[in-house]
Amino acid sequence: MEELKQAILNKGVVVSNGVLKVDTFLNHQIDPILIAQMGQEFVKRFNGKEITKILTIESSGIAPAFTTALELGIPFVFARKKKSLTLSSNLLSAKVHSFTKNETNEITVSKDFILEDDKILIIDDFLANGEAALGLASLVEQANATVVGIGIVIEKSFQPGREKLEQAGYQVESLARLASLENNTVRFLEEVATK
Amino acid sequence: MEELKQAILNKGVVVSNGVLKVDTFLNHQIDPILIAQMGQEFVKRFNGKEITKILTIESSGIAPAFTTALELGIPFVFARKKKSLTLSSNLLSAKVHSFTKNETNEITVSKDFILEDDKILIIDDFLANGEAALGLASLVEQANATVVGIGIVIEKSFQPGREKLEQAGYQVESLARLASLENNTVRFLEEVATK
Repeated sequence: MEELKQAILNKGVVVSNGVLKVDTFLNHQIDPILIAQMGQEFVKRFNGKEITKILTIESSGIAPAFTTALELGIPFVFARKKKSLTLSSNLLSAKVHSFTKNETNEITVSKDFILEDDKILIIDDFLANGEAALGLASLVEQANATVVGIGIVIEKSFQPGREKLEQAGYQVESLARLASLENNTVRFLEEVATK
Repeated sequence: MEELKQAILNKGVVVSNGVLKVDTFLNHQIDPILIAQMGQEFVKRFNGKEITKILTIESSGIAPAFTTALELGIPFVFARKKKSLTLSSNLLSAKVHSFTKNETNEITVSKDFILEDDKILIIDDFLANGEAALGLASLVEQANATVVGIGIVIEKSFQPGREKLEQAGYQVESLARLASLENNTVRFLEEVATK
C-alpha cells in the first residue's frame, strides 16, 4: 500500500534493527485518513471472502480494525490484554508473549462475541513473531469459529511470523512488508527504498 | 443522541445501580456504524470551535475519538494506561483512579503530540467521577495547550463527574445522560424510559 509505505519512510523512526516506531500515525498519534485507506485496502485484499466479524487486540489494532469493519458494515471485537473485572466470566483466553515489551499477557475475549458460525478476519498493527496473531486465531478456534484470514498493517518480513501463520494454514495480507531495518534504513520486501 | 439511547435500552445491561455494561456495541464488541454516528454528533456539538487534535484514552475511547477525528480531518492521540518501553522518555503523565476497576493507573502521552498551540477536544466513552477526563485535561494543560471541550459517549449524571468538569471550566457534551440505573432500569436525564 503506497500511502502507508510513504508514511513509514517519511514519519517512521528506526529504533533498532528490529524495531520501527510509527507513533506519529499508527501507534500513539493516529492519522484517521491513512487508517481509513487501510480499511479499504484490507477489504480489497479479502474481496470475495464471507466475513461476519473482525477480531483485533487492544490498543493499536483498534483503529485499522474499525475502518475495515465500517467498510464491511459488520461489528468488530477487540481482545483485551488482561482480565477486566466487568468481564470476569465466560471468557476465551490465550497467552501471548510480546518480544518488544518482553512480557506475556493473557488475552481474552467474551464467548458472547465469537460464535460457532462466525467467519472472522483478524486484523493487527504489526506482525513480527506471530505471537499475537496466533493467540487471536486460538481464540477463534476455541469457539469453533473460522479464521477467514489475517490482515496486518506492517509486517517485519525478516522475522518468522508470516511463515508460522502460513504453516498453520492462514492467508496473510500485509499492507507493508519490511525486508530489513538494518543500518537505520527501511527496506521494503518488494522494492528497495532509502530513508 | 437517539440512536445511542435506543442501543443502550436494547443492548445495555444494568449490572448494578452504578454500572451499565455496553459490551455489545461500545466496550468490547463495537458497532462501527453507531460509532460513526457518534463522531458526526460530536462534530455538531462542538461546531464553530477551532480544534487541532483529539485526545482520548485506551482502549474504549479510541473508536469514538477515531470517527470524530476522521470527520474533522485531524489526528487523534490516545493516552496509554501504563508506561510502554518504546515510549520511555519525553512523557506527560497523570494519575487516574478507576472506581469501577478499583485501580489507579498512570496515564501517559508523548510530549511530541500535544504542543503549546494545540486546541484539544477530549473524547471518552464514560463519564462517572470525572477522573479520566480530569487526567486527560491535566495532560493538555501540562503542555500549555488548550482544552476546547470534553465529549462523552455515556454520562452517569447521578455521579459527580460533570459537576467537577464544569467547575473546572470545561464545556461537557454527552451523547447520552443517565439519570439513574436503579431498579435495573435505565432512566435518561431528559426523559424517562423503561427497560
